[in-house]
Amino acid sequence: MPRQTAKPWIVVLLSGGLDSATAAAWARAQGFRLAALSIRYGQRHAAEMQAARRVARSLGAARHVEIAVDLARIGGSSLTDRRLRVPKARAGFRIAPGIPSTYVPARNTVFLALALSLAETLGARDLAIGVNALDYSGYPDCRPAFIRAFSRLAGVATKAGIEGRSFRIHTPLIGLTKAQIVRLGLRLGVDYGLTHSCYDPVRRGRRMLACGRCDSCRLRLKGFAEAGQKDPIAYV
Amino acid sequence: MPRQTAKPWIVVLLSGGLDSATAAAWARAQGFRLAALSIRYGQRHAAEMQAARRVARSLGAARHVEIAVDLARIGGSSLTDRRLRVPKARAGFRIAPGIPSTYVPARNTVFLALALSLAETLGARDLAIGVNALDYSGYPDCRPAFIRAFSRLAGVATKAGIEGRSFRIHTPLIGLTKAQIVRLGLRLGVDYGLTHSCYDPVRRGRRMLACGRCDSCRLRLKGFAEAGQKDPIAYV
Repeated sequence: MPRQTAKPWIVVLLSGGLDSATAAAWARAQGFRLAALSIRYGQRHAAEMQAARRVARSLGAARHVEIAVDLARIGGSSLTDRRLRVPKARAGFRIAPGIPSTYVPARNTVFLALALSLAETLGARDLAIGVNALDYSGYPDCRPAFIRAFSRLAGVATKAGIEGRSFRIHTPLIGLTKAQIVRLGLRLGVDYGLTHSCYDPVRRGRRMLACGRCDSCRLRLKGFAEAGQKDPIAYV
Repeated sequence: MPRQTAKPWIVVLLSGGLDSATAAAWARAQGFRLAALSIRYGQRHAAEMQAARRVARSLGAARHVEIAVDLARIGGSSLTDRRLRVPKARAGFRIAPGIPSTYVPARNTVFLALALSLAETLGARDLAIGVNALDYSGYPDCRPAFIRAFSRLAGVATKAGIEGRSFRIHTPLIGLTKAQIVRLGLRLGVDYGLTHSCYDPVRRGRRMLACGRCDSCRLRLKGFAEAGQKDPIAYV
């Protein structure tokens, strides 16, 4: 029997949320071998990491690397600094304009840098990140201009780059609404019951319930509602 | 008495080695307020961190932030993977051509990303890194093209960037020989006895001695020799 050519690696940033789970499922559907990268950065919502493990397993990721980087030492965000409050709103209110306090300074630059490091180690040319510039929180590092600048950087930052191999940063969700993301994921067989999106979950016994009121919960609920689907996770 | 205007912040990547200590002294001499950032990334030469603390203190850094990010989980480098050997050569031999195994994939991308995060939190517009593209180990992320690409990225990656504030990435050593770096540092009052450069130091009692044979030691010794100075640190 001829030796099968291994599928090419792709490094996918996997937070365990709705978007990254969908991006990972997309990458798998493209025929890549998944290397999921999850980053503990001192976020309040550490329930994410358990979700990331469940999602990586359910998608058959060939590697799942977890890295800790203590962005809480830097501060500047309500996601990592427990003295700051995560902004909340009542259902129906629109998300506040401007960049909210949940913005973590340069977070996606740090995350893509780590993904690039893993890609270079594995010999991967492809990276994927579930950023979304439509139904999003207004973070600067979710926009196409940021992704383009990072692609250019990757080409000169690495050994692979100077040897003439370029990197592709895939952003399959960047132009989709949340409803379109939900529909895409369901079509690809994502089990959204395994995912976790809430910025500020509430513990009830052994379960973590989504608050339903932070930006992330509200965008997620809006996505399911507009897709005509029921969100399978538990809310407060 | 009128309130004094605070000096502007600069975030300086401070490994505790010869180059970063000189870059930090340069930044101080420019009139900046120093925020030193040291990163424990799973390197063999953890003696660096003690050196970084000594250097930060001696330069009067207003902040010294230490962040851990476990690049050893990613691997791919003899600096973080203890199963690989740090390349050594006898004194007088030239450093091997090509990129050596001590290259840590995408390390400076990760480091500058973290520096950018700290800069954004402090409201700093200035970053400094002691990269050097002349007497160096051939790492791709020490070259001017890398720094230019990172500067462009910083402008779009951040809240500050989209508000119209740009970032300057200072590389005061990039065009200097090691001998010129040593001379610059001595002129600026750097105490090189506090620094540590060796990739693979040897413990002797309570002291860590530099091996004298890795690329980093040899470049350092060459710099002192060509500057007509004696390196104050202890070698095996």
